[in-house]
Amino acid sequence: MGQKEDTIRIPFHDLRLTLARCLMSRGFSESRANQCAHIFAENSLVGVASHGLNRFPRFLEWIDRSWVNPAAGPERISTHGGIERWDGNLGPGPLNAQQCMGRAMTLSESTGIGCVALRNTNHWMRAGTYAWQAAEAGFLAICFTNTEPNLPPWGSDVPKLGNNPIAISIPRKNGRHVLYDGAMSQFSYGTLESAVAHQETLPVPGGFTKEGELTSDPAEIMSSQRALPMGFWKGSGLSLLLDLLATVLTSGKSTHQLGQQEAEYGVSQVFLAFSRSLVDAKSLQAIEDTLADLHSTQNAECRSVTYPGERQFQCRTDNLKHGVAVDAKIWNQVSKQLI
Amino acid sequence: MGQKEDTIRIPFHDLRLTLARCLMSRGFSESRANQCAHIFAENSLVGVASHGLNRFPRFLEWIDRSWVNPAAGPERISTHGGIERWDGNLGPGPLNAQQCMGRAMTLSESTGIGCVALRNTNHWMRAGTYAWQAAEAGFLAICFTNTEPNLPPWGSDVPKLGNNPIAISIPRKNGRHVLYDGAMSQFSYGTLESAVAHQETLPVPGGFTKEGELTSDPAEIMSSQRALPMGFWKGSGLSLLLDLLATVLTSGKSTHQLGQQEAEYGVSQVFLAFSRSLVDAKSLQAIEDTLADLHSTQNAECRSVTYPGERQFQCRTDNLKHGVAVDAKIWNQVSKQLI
Repeated sequence: MGQKEDTIRIPFHDLRLTLARCLMSRGFSESRANQCAHIFAENSLVGVASHGLNRFPRFLEWIDRSWVNPAAGPERISTHGGIERWDGNLGPGPLNAQQCMGRAMTLSESTGIGCVALRNTNHWMRAGTYAWQAAEAGFLAICFTNTEPNLPPWGSDVPKLGNNPIAISIPRKNGRHVLYDGAMSQFSYGTLESAVAHQETLPVPGGFTKEGELTSDPAEIMSSQRALPMGFWKGSGLSLLLDLLATVLTSGKSTHQLGQQEAEYGVSQVFLAFSRSLVDAKSLQAIEDTLADLHSTQNAECRSVTYPGERQFQCRTDNLKHGVAVDAKIWNQVSKQLI
Repeated sequence: MGQKEDTIRIPFHDLRLTLARCLMSRGFSESRANQCAHIFAENSLVGVASHGLNRFPRFLEWIDRSWVNPAAGPERISTHGGIERWDGNLGPGPLNAQQCMGRAMTLSESTGIGCVALRNTNHWMRAGTYAWQAAEAGFLAICFTNTEPNLPPWGSDVPKLGNNPIAISIPRKNGRHVLYDGAMSQFSYGTLESAVAHQETLPVPGGFTKEGELTSDPAEIMSSQRALPMGFWKGSGLSLLLDLLATVLTSGKSTHQLGQQEAEYGVSQVFLAFSRSLVDAKSLQAIEDTLADLHSTQNAECRSVTYPGERQFQCRTDNLKHGVAVDAKIWNQVSKQLI
């Protein structure tokens, strides 16, 4: 969590209020502005600025281009038992997603497993937001989204796949939930951009050079646009399957169809929640035993072993105490409403 | 699909009959022996001998040790709307899994999404068997299992995670379904063993040396027992989440608990099926468009681009025509009932 030179710390409350003010100036109602700003601010709070403050100017641009409709919300199209299909009406992705995960949770209370398949929505920023939302209420949850084509399939140099992030959450009694949140690429473009800016080398190969050689140089990958699927052919395959699942379940747009547009809007997302009644005392104990076992070991090179979501929680605690670490330049632009 | 020197070809029918005969000699009824033998033979047929004929002697050993009960089948423990919990009673993993995927499919017809959480079952051999079963009947499906600890988490050299395979299927009208089937390790131990036997180097790093260096030498990895999670920290995290999902949903054993036994038996598995009514003509077309787009490209190095499951289908066709490629030594043992 070392601070970069161009990083300053802002109280969470100030960050959220500032973002909400910007959103109101773009046509959001006060309550929707607050709700949406909270999600962006929370993303920076847990250390994912690439989908928090840093992404906020682009979110406003999408509104200005009418690709995101601030006033639109999702509506239910059809019901199939524990599955519902909803249309996002190109509303703000974070608000649509939050509502649909909430609906999946409610559904699961009566149907055991609830699934909302949401088409025609927009970028939800951080997948983990919605799985965490479910964990906070005691649910196991899974959610995933497709994206525009941005990842070459294994064996190709043309970006035909999305990086299609998925999040999975396991609730814990102490609130330090287990939260997996990851795209199908080894590194996000946000991470690559940040590594270039700070002249860092990637810890493992993250893509190909223009000549088709694996490389850990983020600038080479930004230049070739050939990011590496996680696990090589494995992430490539999983990405395709998540896209097809999302496309069929929502009856919405596939990554291939999104690639035929001028920009990424109208994506397809799936929200799954499992009834809280399944998370009994025995299960909660099994979760704790597994995490304790995981923590009991570290390797010969003395790296620490953490569970998914653990570092984000630590970052959140740190940022709440000391202020949210933000990029000074972007903060300056946003807080002065220069965008 | 090049044949190795010690490989011979056996008609599928002969392979299946021979395996069934072995199973009947171990206490299987004729119909259950035929059903179970079909699954093993089919695994070899599609080119996954590590979970077909090659694994068969170990399956018989598990029966002889009373870790698998040939006569036991799964029974329903509780119902929660679209989710049911079943107990496998330590019956044969492939038969338990086939029945539970069938039940998830039936459930989904009334509940939109059906989930069977099966505890106390046994190794199902190939995850893809059950997702394919669903695809053949027109369902989208997901299934996953936990395993004994066999994979060090990222940052550790102690195998605390399972490799926890998952399979996802998307049905196609022409029967050449899309089928993802993969463990959370970059390579299975079956693949590593095969690479050692044929003195092959892995195409990408697959684990660590005893000194903690990444290596593509399969013998080094077999020696260190430090296989690499796919996508490094990503597969490590996903593996943990799949285990916790399986443990909580089934109220069954976790990987950690399986590791406290003398062998791997009584694992936890989850079967999800989505109603066929969601797979409409529009969706089927979107699937075809995506696959055609994927096939339209190959990279500068001229590798072919395939979708998950495509090569297995080609292998199946080839093996049906020319006979199933089997390891001559293992075939000799099994066909003479020397095991």
